[in-house]
Amino acid sequence: MAYLDKKHNNIRIVMINTSHPGNIGAAARVMKNMGLTRLYLVNPKQFPNYEATAMASGADDLLSQATVCSSFEEALEGCRLVLGTTARERKIQHEFIDAREAGGLSVCESAQHEVALVFGRERTGLTNDEIGLCHKLINIPTNPDYSSLNVASAVQIVTYEVMMAFQMGQVQTTLKPEESTEYASSEDIERFYEHLQQTLIDIDFLRIKQSPQLMPKLRHVYNRIRLKQEELNILRGILNKTQKLKE
Amino acid sequence: MAYLDKKHNNIRIVMINTSHPGNIGAAARVMKNMGLTRLYLVNPKQFPNYEATAMASGADDLLSQATVCSSFEEALEGCRLVLGTTARERKIQHEFIDAREAGGLSVCESAQHEVALVFGRERTGLTNDEIGLCHKLINIPTNPDYSSLNVASAVQIVTYEVMMAFQMGQVQTTLKPEESTEYASSEDIERFYEHLQQTLIDIDFLRIKQSPQLMPKLRHVYNRIRLKQEELNILRGILNKTQKLKE
Repeated sequence: MAYLDKKHNNIRIVMINTSHPGNIGAAARVMKNMGLTRLYLVNPKQFPNYEATAMASGADDLLSQATVCSSFEEALEGCRLVLGTTARERKIQHEFIDAREAGGLSVCESAQHEVALVFGRERTGLTNDEIGLCHKLINIPTNPDYSSLNVASAVQIVTYEVMMAFQMGQVQTTLKPEESTEYASSEDIERFYEHLQQTLIDIDFLRIKQSPQLMPKLRHVYNRIRLKQEELNILRGILNKTQKLKE
Repeated sequence: MAYLDKKHNNIRIVMINTSHPGNIGAAARVMKNMGLTRLYLVNPKQFPNYEATAMASGADDLLSQATVCSSFEEALEGCRLVLGTTARERKIQHEFIDAREAGGLSVCESAQHEVALVFGRERTGLTNDEIGLCHKLINIPTNPDYSSLNVASAVQIVTYEVMMAFQMGQVQTTLKPEESTEYASSEDIERFYEHLQQTLIDIDFLRIKQSPQLMPKLRHVYNRIRLKQEELNILRGILNKTQKLKE
């Protein structure tokens, strides 16, 4: 797991008092998907548990390495940034940030010190005392008519934003064109347009004086494709065959 | 559900051939959390099912309103933007965007027409034929050592980005479609392919048994364009004219 260890090692996920072991397993799976490995469980109701292992679906290494703690304070040991998650904005005085900002902040600060991303109980979330230990609260936007987010879904969203923040910090290699692709040259594309125009004249579809806009429109269509050489050859083959019908 | 109906009504979630009913329920829950309501199920293995209802956890209204379809094409009826989801970048020529861009694009275009966000099978994702019906593919970033994202997690990430795009009003100007643009519907594009194939057969350019790859290649060319209605009409006019030459 060299990929994970190098990059995300200072970010831990803390789940408090989780009732359903399946949620712990599902959280482990999404963490691993998003490149995080360190799971802290504060007084889980049932752990270890077969449901957790089943839901982890191949991320059970995170479960066996998980740190089980008897208090929230213990789970936060060594952390200099603690972000708590809450689905609904409560009437409390606290700084709220959204998940995107939380992702950026976690990645940024994890270069220097330990960061904890905290998720509360399924039904009741975090207590006021626990909120008191968080530096900021992450507010995940939800449909106001149906805001009860599953705890593993909350972990999914926040860890996805961590992943995105990491990726955006990297050189954007995705923009590289594939080396094997051989695009048609501009000259060949021009020859295709000439061939297309001649064919349309041959089959009496185009009379340039009457429809001066037709060729510009067709150029606009085909220019959007960025044709490869092989594809251009197919299209020209069709034009050749069409022209022969009039001979 | 006034909140949902007003804002997100043109965005549908399409799940293809889902094996585990629990995943359908979990997807319904995250959809509703993120303010989406329209679920299309293409040949689900088991539906309706008690596991789906249990996992939906209060979002069972989305399940009872879900549209069950017998083909992918049926699920796309009326859609003018179709975005498919894939966890791993495959060696295919297709335009990839990330989930964030997909959220912005969906929100932006849903103001004008129907949008489909498509999720494939749990193990094998989308087939090449299904990919052929998508205008762009959404690539969700994952840990390369553990990239198998649960399908409901994929729905969670993409719908979260839809929600964020709505909330932040962050519809970027670059994504704005031209106001007058009317894209051709999926059904019309399909009819164009049928017409193209028939014409190529008529003019003796295509013998399907001898060249089974020709139509897939041509689909791949024209799918990249995202044809507007007017452009489609021109291309079909050319086909009509060409067919008449053989009469």
